[in-house]
Amino acid sequence: MLKELGAPLAKTRPIGLFQHLPKLAGLCDDIWRDALDTAQVLCYPAGTDLNEFFNQADRFVIVLQGVVKVYEADDTGREITLYRVYGGQILVLTLIHMLHRTRRCALAMAEEDVRLLSLPPEYFDHMLEKSEGFRRYFMTSMANCITDVTQLITHVSFNHLNFRLAHLIRRFADQSTPCTVRLTHQALANELGTTREVVSRLLKGFERSGSIKLNRGSIEIVDMGELETILQ
Amino acid sequence: MLKELGAPLAKTRPIGLFQHLPKLAGLCDDIWRDALDTAQVLCYPAGTDLNEFFNQADRFVIVLQGVVKVYEADDTGREITLYRVYGGQILVLTLIHMLHRTRRCALAMAEEDVRLLSLPPEYFDHMLEKSEGFRRYFMTSMANCITDVTQLITHVSFNHLNFRLAHLIRRFADQSTPCTVRLTHQALANELGTTREVVSRLLKGFERSGSIKLNRGSIEIVDMGELETILQ
Repeated sequence: MLKELGAPLAKTRPIGLFQHLPKLAGLCDDIWRDALDTAQVLCYPAGTDLNEFFNQADRFVIVLQGVVKVYEADDTGREITLYRVYGGQILVLTLIHMLHRTRRCALAMAEEDVRLLSLPPEYFDHMLEKSEGFRRYFMTSMANCITDVTQLITHVSFNHLNFRLAHLIRRFADQSTPCTVRLTHQALANELGTTREVVSRLLKGFERSGSIKLNRGSIEIVDMGELETILQ
Repeated sequence: MLKELGAPLAKTRPIGLFQHLPKLAGLCDDIWRDALDTAQVLCYPAGTDLNEFFNQADRFVIVLQGVVKVYEADDTGREITLYRVYGGQILVLTLIHMLHRTRRCALAMAEEDVRLLSLPPEYFDHMLEKSEGFRRYFMTSMANCITDVTQLITHVSFNHLNFRLAHLIRRFADQSTPCTVRLTHQALANELGTTREVVSRLLKGFERSGSIKLNRGSIEIVDMGELETILQ
């Protein structure tokens, strides 16, 4: 499952590697180049469960390309998406793994094909000590992660499930005509921390009100205005 | 409202100040002592809204004594408690304020009389650069904060409100006979992100089942076993 892209990155590579990741481009100091000498680039296909890798490998990870979904699950298999980590962002979860080796952490999966930059933990501390740019980058990543999960708590606590579902449909709608959400009811339930049955029941209510049309594996938005009445 | 305790701390003070805060006692290196020269100790009585102070003052804050409650509120005044910060812990919220000056942050209040150690932001970066002990302490604080709010998301998402309310009652019960929770229905609602009316309705259900007895401003647990059936 784990595919390593040959040898660690050469010293000449980082600038090319990061030029399309603005947050990292500013980090091209000597400390960062040294750290990259010991880094590995790992590739995983979409759908890969990344938990085993994070549990075993005491590594600090930055997402270079693709999307990692961080989520939680209960004993019955119910899931809720906590946040997503995109290209150029620190996978904060791996830092928490490094610190809380005995405590259970959130879970992660590759939502698209991903390229991850994996660094040994001693370089993490070294960069924090030596690179002001890295400290700023790291602090912003941690603060964004805390802000994201805090906002999710208020979203979950203060909004009814039908509001959160309508919000999610609007967010995941593509640009086709009519706008379509290509997610199963189970995938929507996993976003929201509820069950497929509850999502299906709410979607049928939306269909009855004329805002959406349910197809197999996709949802067409036939009246965005009607859908948005739920969001008011 | 803001009461400053005289001059900044003297160089000889930190060890005495922190000896009962084990997480900070290990930090008594020169860098930390220098930082304390520019620190202020601020005292606020229980119930003080700390938001104005955090919004105005670009400071990094450690709680020395007492408890700070960090919470969120919606437009209708509904609240949910996110986490509490106790003596010896970094008030992570102040770091997020420092970084996201334009974004709305969570809210904070002194839940007990508090003593706060307030440091200018340049010392924060300086300590992160120079003190390995501080880096470890800081990293653990950030990771704990993220873990706490993540656990709250799963608690809110996967558990029914009656489970969360029973859990809260058990957590806040004192050691008297019978165990008593000295919180109003509104305070319980503010913990859970719901309304007083919903809490009162659920509590009446608990009373009917014989697990609690409702008094004015307090709740007696008359049958802990019965209460715990809700938690199974």
